Amino acid sequence: MIKAGVIGSTGYAGQELVRLLLSHPDVKISFVSSKSYAGASYSDIFPNFYKKMNIECISTPEDLSELDLDVLFTALPHGHTSGMISSKILKKFKVIDLGADFRLKEINTYENWYQVKHESPQLLPLSVYGLCEINRESIAKSNLIANPGCYTTCSILAIVPLLKESLIDPSSIIIDAKSGVTGAGRGLDLSTHFTECNESIKAYKIASHRHTPEIEEQLSISAGHVICVNFTPHLVPMNRGILCTSYANLKEGVHQDTIKKAYEKYYGDEPFIRLLPNNTPAETRWVKGSNFVDIGFSVDLRTNRIIVTSALDNLIKGAAGQAIQNMNIAFNIQETTGLDHLSIFPI
Amino acid sequence: MIKAGVIGSTGYAGQELVRLLLSHPDVKISFVSSKSYAGASYSDIFPNFYKKMNIECISTPEDLSELDLDVLFTALPHGHTSGMISSKILKKFKVIDLGADFRLKEINTYENWYQVKHESPQLLPLSVYGLCEINRESIAKSNLIANPGCYTTCSILAIVPLLKESLIDPSSIIIDAKSGVTGAGRGLDLSTHFTECNESIKAYKIASHRHTPEIEEQLSISAGHVICVNFTPHLVPMNRGILCTSYANLKEGVHQDTIKKAYEKYYGDEPFIRLLPNNTPAETRWVKGSNFVDIGFSVDLRTNRIIVTSALDNLIKGAAGQAIQNMNIAFNIQETTGLDHLSIFPI
Amino acid sequence: MIKAGVIGSTGYAGQELVRLLLSHPDVKISFVSSKSYAGASYSDIFPNFYKKMNIECISTPEDLSELDLDVLFTALPHGHTSGMISSKILKKFKVIDLGADFRLKEINTYENWYQVKHESPQLLPLSVYGLCEINRESIAKSNLIANPGCYTTCSILAIVPLLKESLIDPSSIIIDAKSGVTGAGRGLDLSTHFTECNESIKAYKIASHRHTPEIEEQLSISAGHVICVNFTPHLVPMNRGILCTSYANLKEGVHQDTIKKAYEKYYGDEPFIRLLPNNTPAETRWVKGSNFVDIGFSVDLRTNRIIVTSALDNLIKGAAGQAIQNMNIAFNIQETTGLDHLSIFPI
Amino acid sequence: MIKAGVIGSTGYAGQELVRLLLSHPDVKISFVSSKSYAGASYSDIFPNFYKKMNIECISTPEDLSELDLDVLFTALPHGHTSGMISSKILKKFKVIDLGADFRLKEINTYENWYQVKHESPQLLPLSVYGLCEINRESIAKSNLIANPGCYTTCSILAIVPLLKESLIDPSSIIIDAKSGVTGAGRGLDLSTHFTECNESIKAYKIASHRHTPEIEEQLSISAGHVICVNFTPHLVPMNRGILCTSYANLKEGVHQDTIKKAYEKYYGDEPFIRLLPNNTPAETRWVKGSNFVDIGFSVDLRTNRIIVTSALDNLIKGAAGQAIQNMNIAFNIQETTGLDHLSIFPI
Repeated sequence: MIKAGVIGSTGYAGQELVRLLLSHPDVKISFVSSKSYAGASYSDIFPNFYKKMNIECISTPEDLSELDLDVLFTALPHGHTSGMISSKILKKFKVIDLGADFRLKEINTYENWYQVKHESPQLLPLSVYGLCEINRESIAKSNLIANPGCYTTCSILAIVPLLKESLIDPSSIIIDAKSGVTGAGRGLDLSTHFTECNESIKAYKIASHRHTPEIEEQLSISAGHVICVNFTPHLVPMNRGILCTSYANLKEGVHQDTIKKAYEKYYGDEPFIRLLPNNTPAETRWVKGSNFVDIGFSVDLRTNRIIVTSALDNLIKGAAGQAIQNMNIAFNIQETTGLDHLSIFPI
Repeated sequence: MIKAGVIGSTGYAGQELVRLLLSHPDVKISFVSSKSYAGASYSDIFPNFYKKMNIECISTPEDLSELDLDVLFTALPHGHTSGMISSKILKKFKVIDLGADFRLKEINTYENWYQVKHESPQLLPLSVYGLCEINRESIAKSNLIANPGCYTTCSILAIVPLLKESLIDPSSIIIDAKSGVTGAGRGLDLSTHFTECNESIKAYKIASHRHTPEIEEQLSISAGHVICVNFTPHLVPMNRGILCTSYANLKEGVHQDTIKKAYEKYYGDEPFIRLLPNNTPAETRWVKGSNFVDIGFSVDLRTNRIIVTSALDNLIKGAAGQAIQNMNIAFNIQETTGLDHLSIFPI
Repeated sequence: MIKAGVIGSTGYAGQELVRLLLSHPDVKISFVSSKSYAGASYSDIFPNFYKKMNIECISTPEDLSELDLDVLFTALPHGHTSGMISSKILKKFKVIDLGADFRLKEINTYENWYQVKHESPQLLPLSVYGLCEINRESIAKSNLIANPGCYTTCSILAIVPLLKESLIDPSSIIIDAKSGVTGAGRGLDLSTHFTECNESIKAYKIASHRHTPEIEEQLSISAGHVICVNFTPHLVPMNRGILCTSYANLKEGVHQDTIKKAYEKYYGDEPFIRLLPNNTPAETRWVKGSNFVDIGFSVDLRTNRIIVTSALDNLIKGAAGQAIQNMNIAFNIQETTGLDHLSIFPI
Repeated sequence: MIKAGVIGSTGYAGQELVRLLLSHPDVKISFVSSKSYAGASYSDIFPNFYKKMNIECISTPEDLSELDLDVLFTALPHGHTSGMISSKILKKFKVIDLGADFRLKEINTYENWYQVKHESPQLLPLSVYGLCEINRESIAKSNLIANPGCYTTCSILAIVPLLKESLIDPSSIIIDAKSGVTGAGRGLDLSTHFTECNESIKAYKIASHRHTPEIEEQLSISAGHVICVNFTPHLVPMNRGILCTSYANLKEGVHQDTIKKAYEKYYGDEPFIRLLPNNTPAETRWVKGSNFVDIGFSVDLRTNRIIVTSALDNLIKGAAGQAIQNMNIAFNIQETTGLDHLSIFPI
């Protein structure tokens, strides 16, 4: 059994992680910790756990290096994890970080976009960007896995095959993303007060959302050169789910079939990516509660653009599910273990 | 492996049943059938099944007695199942009916409330009301299990201990029930058109809802005499979940502790009933996606009434989950098999 | 023109009041004030006012008695208004308080339920309970009008005719109330965070909600003797609207027609009460955005109970609309002035 | 008083039109008609009208030319109105068509996209595209006003100033649109069944929505040459509101200020267009219930693109409100008459 600890277990992603770990056949939860709820019974904080898990939520351990663990999950706001991890720790157990601190390889990019000093830049070369379908092999060997963001997973997976196969003009990429409100977390804010966001839709952080450099860094790697994109997040009055509608200009002579083959080449065997039939747009309802990413695309012959729709559950494939998928890879377990859920419908 | 067939697999309850059966370790799905979608791929009808189950939805078999099955689930509108089942069939395999046809023992009550002729009254004595926590022993021996309604499961479980222990005035029971819209099914109707029920709440079928006689018949059995209740259903703008708020006058000298002990006596060891701490009201969010029923109660000393709140997922414990729980009991499998899900939160 | 000031203008009720006052033909808004937003442009706080009202939200005036006003509206949390009002002020202008401080005549009841000292008990005899349809004549003469609560307006209006005409057993009244989330106000709280209350329903403050004594005091006045009720509020995932489902045992020999006549006797000429056709339940969608209360009832002959459904918009008839109705009465203007809106549908 | 008739009064746009006409000080409603509800009381169909308007919904008049009217509003599905209107009718009274039949000047475009024959192509030269802010002068003189679509109003108004002032590359326009479910109408369909679209988002009719040619025709007029755009509509789980997020490549040397001046030049004096402060994205909640269009924009210096957000209420400025605005213009009444509502918030 893999001994797992969860730091930051009372945010939405942390809680979802605990739920999934609890039913994972190869995992034993060693501890769950939290700053705000230390000392409380976990099932008092989240009554869905009532009668199913009876442990106390502890305060975050002072010295992580003394923990008897196989894997540590950290699910903290940016800037909190970089100071907690050290090479010493990484020699004892694997760390899978659901936060942003180890996702960007360029420390300047990180510090500019996040406006915080990175506390352990020396660890960045050791970290792997944990987008399973893209970096499976390096994930398998790494002790520090930076679990991707929710928007970024949904965006990058939609576009990578188009760039790898040079099917689109890389300067023309526009990603119009829509997220349910769990994406904003459990912290109280007027913008996520029920009566302020229910029955309304808005764009926010236009041209300034922090997932932009993460998308760009990964797409640049795929393309082999630097790429800039427009990324516009929107808040949708629903609990879960992300839909990305991505646009790009097709290169001359690129047809529907070529594109289809490109997606099949990269994702045809992927257990968690479902390529939808021609012209079938992705919908969040079919992935909610599952670790799937659904991808559909259409070609507009009039404008010669491709429109890709991709959908995932932001707390599962966009956070906790992918973290477990990363763990499965890193521990050489069947990759789908503990993640074999269908979307529940309608929910 | 238990060979299972599902008739009426494309309603919400039917689909939820297929989803749960698919991940049940002891079940093999033999067929799924439907009137409206015969011939279609099941994952085209419900794309959450895409890449997970690749079978065709067939038309309802003409002669059920020729089926090679261990259990047949029927999930049809009332009046459709009674004519399909026969003693011959019941000798070949077990039938678990998610519809209303075999729930009421009194055929007159059935025909009055449902305004339809019962096609197989001779089978009624063979049927067992499949409320697992109440009728576990007879369910284990029966070949015809009438799976309870969603409102009724939530209502009856909340009140049975109070009647069995004679803690309340049985003529004073009022059940004010609130349901998500999946309770109304997948058939199109103006009342469940998104923009007609979103952002609004209403009561409906006041003093005339068909779950009333079902509640009364079961409560009468518990009390040992005929009981009449007020049952008022409401439509709430959410997908899933039922909450019942039930009121009754306490008999003289009945205190909080007596009540608590009564609930613990009947449900203390039940795997799917969670008795909430004192004065903690049940909420649908903590049971959605699970087979749990949460029950909480308060005593109003000023009016000497008890107020019981009970919550369940109408498609799971209120339909498909309880059907599987019944199957587990009937096949002498561990009762929680395939039903061991926590509620997903927030969803 | 009536010069009106609004203290507490940035809560939901306060904002709705400002919106309604702005289009009232006989009112000039003198100032709007707020503790939290003092100094901000009102249309920056509420961009629906952008280009329609260009005034600054000021801090609450220190000395109210110096204000040059005809009417002052106060929309503050309980305990804040009682210390601000004095006889001197009431001689200068009328006060309409949307808070709880002057609603209960019994100071002990107030202090017990609200757990706060009342700062001006000497003013209680001067105040009138501003339920327009019940107290129209005394409202017309009063300088201190206590605008009723949202739940209470919806509850009391549903039941008064039944008590006045002695049609029901007064000890049998149960009010099961359901409210949209604006009822909980604009203050941040985990319970009204979008993803905590969306897609779920719960009861709260069972047998302990502060609107209970207000309902009881008014019903007791109607009945001519002390009445105790069960009042259970529920939180429904929608922005606006309250639905009350009320139950009572009918006295012997009371029939549908007698009840209908009772409602017509008291409300037949009321501009803002709509008596629905027989057995038509009220729905919040038909009153949202309007000052109407819709009332429907059914008789359950099997249990001899009446079930009354009543619906209103909690921010209009349940708060700001009724405050303006009170102002219209108090200033001897046509009672419907500025309140003549249909419900917008679907919204 | 303007005598107005409404054909197609029981769809959502028709009903909203009746509501707005009812409170318009210069209008008298002559009749409301409907195919599906002929003979029913209008307030039985829409109980928000109960006690406010007591007329019967008649069947559509056979011979429109005999109607004694000043203006006829038609709110029918495409293909139904073109055969009903004639020059004779247009000589008797004005026609404002909320449907699609007279919006496109190019009959081939109409017949290709709508797959229906146009029954009165000879009237197309007489019709004016009723986008008030763009065509005010010709609207004033016309007897046949083609009221624009909801998506189109929101899209065109966002982009026209950019084209008129040559600030963007006209081949780079991408409009990512999001609509509430009223946009899909009141007809029953599985896609708008509550539990099928609640808590989910999807794109639909990618590269094939019928509002595309309407947008293109109008933008082409503004640009002075043919323009092709990408238009992608999405269905959002909310009742009302449209948000368009539009993207275009800025021409060299175009700065924030130039853009701001362009918008002010065209819309600075418009009563129903609100230009938002720099980098403030539009939100549907601030326009719902009003006739406003809110427009905000941001410049992404990294990609040199402009991102424009525009929001309106699809049933008001996107349908019934604009129809009345057109009527006001056509009858030389103050343009804002009967449309002077703030958005109600939160609703």
